[in-house]
Amino acid sequence: MKIVKTIDELKLARSELKGTIGFVPTMGALHNGHLSLMQNAVAQNDHAIVSVFVNPTQFLVGEDLSTYPKRTQADIKICELAGVSILFMPTPEVMYSSMEPTILAPSAKAYILEGLARPGHFDGVLRVVLKLFNLTKPTRAYFGKKDAQQLYLIQNMVKSLFLDLEIVPCEIVREDDDLALSSRNVYLNAKERKEALLLCESLKVATHDIIAGERNIAAIKAEMLHTLEPLHVEYVEILNRDFDTIETIEIGNSIILVCAKVGTTRLIDNLWI
Amino acid sequence: MKIVKTIDELKLARSELKGTIGFVPTMGALHNGHLSLMQNAVAQNDHAIVSVFVNPTQFLVGEDLSTYPKRTQADIKICELAGVSILFMPTPEVMYSSMEPTILAPSAKAYILEGLARPGHFDGVLRVVLKLFNLTKPTRAYFGKKDAQQLYLIQNMVKSLFLDLEIVPCEIVREDDDLALSSRNVYLNAKERKEALLLCESLKVATHDIIAGERNIAAIKAEMLHTLEPLHVEYVEILNRDFDTIETIEIGNSIILVCAKVGTTRLIDNLWI
Repeated sequence: MKIVKTIDELKLARSELKGTIGFVPTMGALHNGHLSLMQNAVAQNDHAIVSVFVNPTQFLVGEDLSTYPKRTQADIKICELAGVSILFMPTPEVMYSSMEPTILAPSAKAYILEGLARPGHFDGVLRVVLKLFNLTKPTRAYFGKKDAQQLYLIQNMVKSLFLDLEIVPCEIVREDDDLALSSRNVYLNAKERKEALLLCESLKVATHDIIAGERNIAAIKAEMLHTLEPLHVEYVEILNRDFDTIETIEIGNSIILVCAKVGTTRLIDNLWI
Repeated sequence: MKIVKTIDELKLARSELKGTIGFVPTMGALHNGHLSLMQNAVAQNDHAIVSVFVNPTQFLVGEDLSTYPKRTQADIKICELAGVSILFMPTPEVMYSSMEPTILAPSAKAYILEGLARPGHFDGVLRVVLKLFNLTKPTRAYFGKKDAQQLYLIQNMVKSLFLDLEIVPCEIVREDDDLALSSRNVYLNAKERKEALLLCESLKVATHDIIAGERNIAAIKAEMLHTLEPLHVEYVEILNRDFDTIETIEIGNSIILVCAKVGTTRLIDNLWI
């Protein structure tokens, strides 16, 4: 595995790879969710490229940019064991200049849910992802369904900017007790770790409702909110897969999304139904 | 020459071209300025692709979008004779969807000069050029020095978004009497056509000043404004080639830019010194 830190190093290493390329952009602090993306990228392509870059433009002032978990040596080891060909670890100075174009995600879909709590977050995500796509020129890029809104907006960008690559959505990876993996789970103390289970619990409640025949979204949301009562809920939403509002569940075309604060840690989870 | 109108047709035609690709994006109404871009693209590459697309996102409300000169049959003939391999003529519906990311050009350089009179113009230019680059995947793309600020902002975008292509700046093509070619010259009546010569005349005055040893920008601008007095001058500016303000001429790193209205027609011209 080649570890590269500059644009020139990356371009050189990329030019030496022949065949199909699977790309996994990450912010590091790699867990089994990332590993599953990498395993797909390695299995489905001739080579895999991973980036580890805590992207400042997707953090808002006051968010956890400076304290975002960093585990560089462990990240390198994980990428190596996963069979990654190139690991790109740039600094912000490598990725950004003082004067450059910015990207605005489509506001109707980028300023709801995560984007309501984090205005501008997705502009920063699209900006860095576009740059990374242009640098790594992947055949396929791998994103987890956990960040469902991010996945949707990246798919929208690829389509509307005519980028020549395929976005591969990957399943959410969960702990044994079904907590969705997140680099931010390390912020949870023992009590919070237990309370955090209410997020996936609320999704199970919704699933049971739907299996029982419930299709009315207001009714399902009310049940979910009841489950989530002990937490500070930020949103519970059921949308179609274009992130449009719907009134009744469309099986095969809906997403149930939940966001809540557990202690001071903001957690998200979702279910595609 | 293949004439294609949809994304699928373009992708198919593009996939059949091997070797290097020269790309010339235009808004049609092709004149000898465009022809010179095409000739460079044909000469320096295995194949040339030209797009003809009057891009709505770079026009402001009240500008000449609906009346912009259209000469489709003549454009096709010119591209054919120039040896172009693919001519892409999409509609706005092909190029844009109702919900998609937008691009913001860096404001410090995109809201001066042309961008002051036409706020948002360069955002639209970068947006369409980025899409066209992604579709045509050129080795080199050709832009005239006449739109100097556009050329600069596109070079800036290519560099900062890490696009893998070369921007080739091409010399301004002029009529026998030195009027810079422009699709908008057709708007001029006989009297205005003569008055329009004051733009290049003012650039010659500046050149004489500089040859005579003048380096002070305020003094050169005063001379130019004197020449341009009969016209409604929008700006006369001398900047370095990064479009930063300077106080004295830097030979080899300066651009003299002029914009004036002749009748109702807004004309620009410039000189790289």
